[in-house]
Amino acid sequence: MDEYYMRQALAISEYATGRTSPNPLVGAVIVKDGRIVGQGWHRQAGTPHAEIHALTQAGDLAKDATIYVTLEPCSHHGRTGPCADALIAAGIKKTVVAMTDPNPLVAGNGLKKLKAAGIEVVEGVLAAEAAKQNEVFIKWISTGLPFGILKTAMSLDGKIAAYTGHSQWITGPAAREQVHKLRDTHDAILVGIGTVLADNPQLTARLPQGGKNPVRIIIDSLARTPLTANVVADKEAPTIIAVSQAAPVERIAALRNRGVEVLEIDSMQSGINLRQLFTVLGERRISSIFIEGGTRINAAVLNANLIDKVYAFIAPKIIGGQTAPSPVGGEGIPSVDQAISLEDVTTKNIGNDMLISGYITRREGRDVYRTCGRIGKG
Amino acid sequence: MDEYYMRQALAISEYATGRTSPNPLVGAVIVKDGRIVGQGWHRQAGTPHAEIHALTQAGDLAKDATIYVTLEPCSHHGRTGPCADALIAAGIKKTVVAMTDPNPLVAGNGLKKLKAAGIEVVEGVLAAEAAKQNEVFIKWISTGLPFGILKTAMSLDGKIAAYTGHSQWITGPAAREQVHKLRDTHDAILVGIGTVLADNPQLTARLPQGGKNPVRIIIDSLARTPLTANVVADKEAPTIIAVSQAAPVERIAALRNRGVEVLEIDSMQSGINLRQLFTVLGERRISSIFIEGGTRINAAVLNANLIDKVYAFIAPKIIGGQTAPSPVGGEGIPSVDQAISLEDVTTKNIGNDMLISGYITRREGRDVYRTCGRIGKG
Repeated sequence: MDEYYMRQALAISEYATGRTSPNPLVGAVIVKDGRIVGQGWHRQAGTPHAEIHALTQAGDLAKDATIYVTLEPCSHHGRTGPCADALIAAGIKKTVVAMTDPNPLVAGNGLKKLKAAGIEVVEGVLAAEAAKQNEVFIKWISTGLPFGILKTAMSLDGKIAAYTGHSQWITGPAAREQVHKLRDTHDAILVGIGTVLADNPQLTARLPQGGKNPVRIIIDSLARTPLTANVVADKEAPTIIAVSQAAPVERIAALRNRGVEVLEIDSMQSGINLRQLFTVLGERRISSIFIEGGTRINAAVLNANLIDKVYAFIAPKIIGGQTAPSPVGGEGIPSVDQAISLEDVTTKNIGNDMLISGYITRREGRDVYRTCGRIGKG
Repeated sequence: MDEYYMRQALAISEYATGRTSPNPLVGAVIVKDGRIVGQGWHRQAGTPHAEIHALTQAGDLAKDATIYVTLEPCSHHGRTGPCADALIAAGIKKTVVAMTDPNPLVAGNGLKKLKAAGIEVVEGVLAAEAAKQNEVFIKWISTGLPFGILKTAMSLDGKIAAYTGHSQWITGPAAREQVHKLRDTHDAILVGIGTVLADNPQLTARLPQGGKNPVRIIIDSLARTPLTANVVADKEAPTIIAVSQAAPVERIAALRNRGVEVLEIDSMQSGINLRQLFTVLGERRISSIFIEGGTRINAAVLNANLIDKVYAFIAPKIIGGQTAPSPVGGEGIPSVDQAISLEDVTTKNIGNDMLISGYITRREGRDVYRTCGRIGKG
């Protein structure tokens, strides 16, 4: 039965997908005499944790009950009080958790506190599912870097556009709606100045039921983003433009004047220092970045090892063309043995298109992820 | 029960996959009083048809029995006598067929003959499955052209090699064995001179249990294939080299002298006239060609509309590189609306790789295929 209730806790926590950042998704279910007497999920950073919602619902019934929580209850005073103390105060008898909290401020201390209070503790129930649900949080809390998602949409012959640059649309409506769902559930979206100049995109999450727009990040060494660009003018979401020291000061001032944030980032041979940019964004509690770059940006973020997950939408059509671009440009590797490998790859049909997604094997934070999920080192 | 027995007939016919060319696969099951009293399948062109094997096994039990045949029994005198006559002579009471024979020499005449003899005839049982099983035969018999299969192996970012040309290996052992199985079951394999010069391939079907080597076809306008190349020297399978009128006569003579067949094909702006080549090969009873070309050959056969089916093996790795080649080169199309679309697309895991396969929607012979399979025009 432990898995049954934990599955319920995992399921309800997902109602808040993309809404709790930089906090994790957490669900809690309180069970007494075979009945669920309280349940809750964390809804937004700065608001009560899942356990508190569940305890409130259970009231006196929490006494001598079992609580199932997808993540170890917290032991520290954050923006809310420690949940471990609340469980003890409510008279909880047994606590079952899916995974311990990789947050160094918790990291087993919550469970220790419960045990010290005489509460029975069971760990690791559906740990792999829980870790997967919080892969973004685990990356960010353990490395300080946002979880990087690279999205590409290509033809079956690996082209992201015709040789002319024409690319609308390679994939069908279902795949494009899926992309808007992904924008809706990630903190930020990142493109290069080339995309801004070519397509003047809005980079918003346009879903039938509305959506949450991600922060828009533009890689733009020389601050060439036009003041009339949608990302500057439409005010639909905050925009951050990352420029190098070579950007003209008057351009920077003009952009700032329009309410855009401009970050000056060090230069590298291949452009701006993307790792520095990601570190700064992570410090600002941006825990995930959805990258819809062109061939150059994609190559740069991959080479800087800033990508954790790849979504490759593949349309069942052939575009052809020696000079038509494929998803990842740059210099590339001389020998295929040096290719960047992916793991945990899955395939899904989305309308007439296919979606292949997987994780970069060499990504940072993989060890912590696998420990949280109790997955053998592979 | 009709579908049950027809499924059995379809299943046994597949034992001869890739061995009956240019004839179709055919299976037959004779049922009397709820028992299978005879069954058989066509094994090789020039040998008895499926019905004859089944009748032989059934002997006197064929009288008043029902025969299930995956393809309409023939009515014409080919290298063997007409099967329709044999069924009548054996006293068969009822004939159930999956599809009528698209061969213009039969095309319903076999069924007419049976009906005229008072035999009950049922058509169209598992027609779609039967048409799919004989997609190669249907293409060849209805258009005179071989069924063209384009195979490619690429990374998740659409590269068939690193920028250096290095490509061994992008896909894993399971995918590569699958390619050898495909070579084993098709009549011919086609590559360009570029592949011969770069890799000196054998182009044979190397399977643990042995394999049937396809005829090797090299597109080589100027007859540059070295006399020491494996495809010339190893004598593992017949080799046909397609050259243009611009090829030096002494090179042609030298190749012929080594036992290679050289076909002179008209030139076109983009190389030799591939349609003319395919027509000649079709006349020689080559009913399927498995194409493992580079970017140029792939573009040329697609542009000439000689491809029916695409096998795209995709490895979960990223190669990158602005100049690293993707599967289809050539000029390409200016707008993605003009892309070549695929239909009936399926996805399969092969080891760690994915295989996406599908059919070119604009392929020739599609209407006949869909009529045979009683599939609505889509």
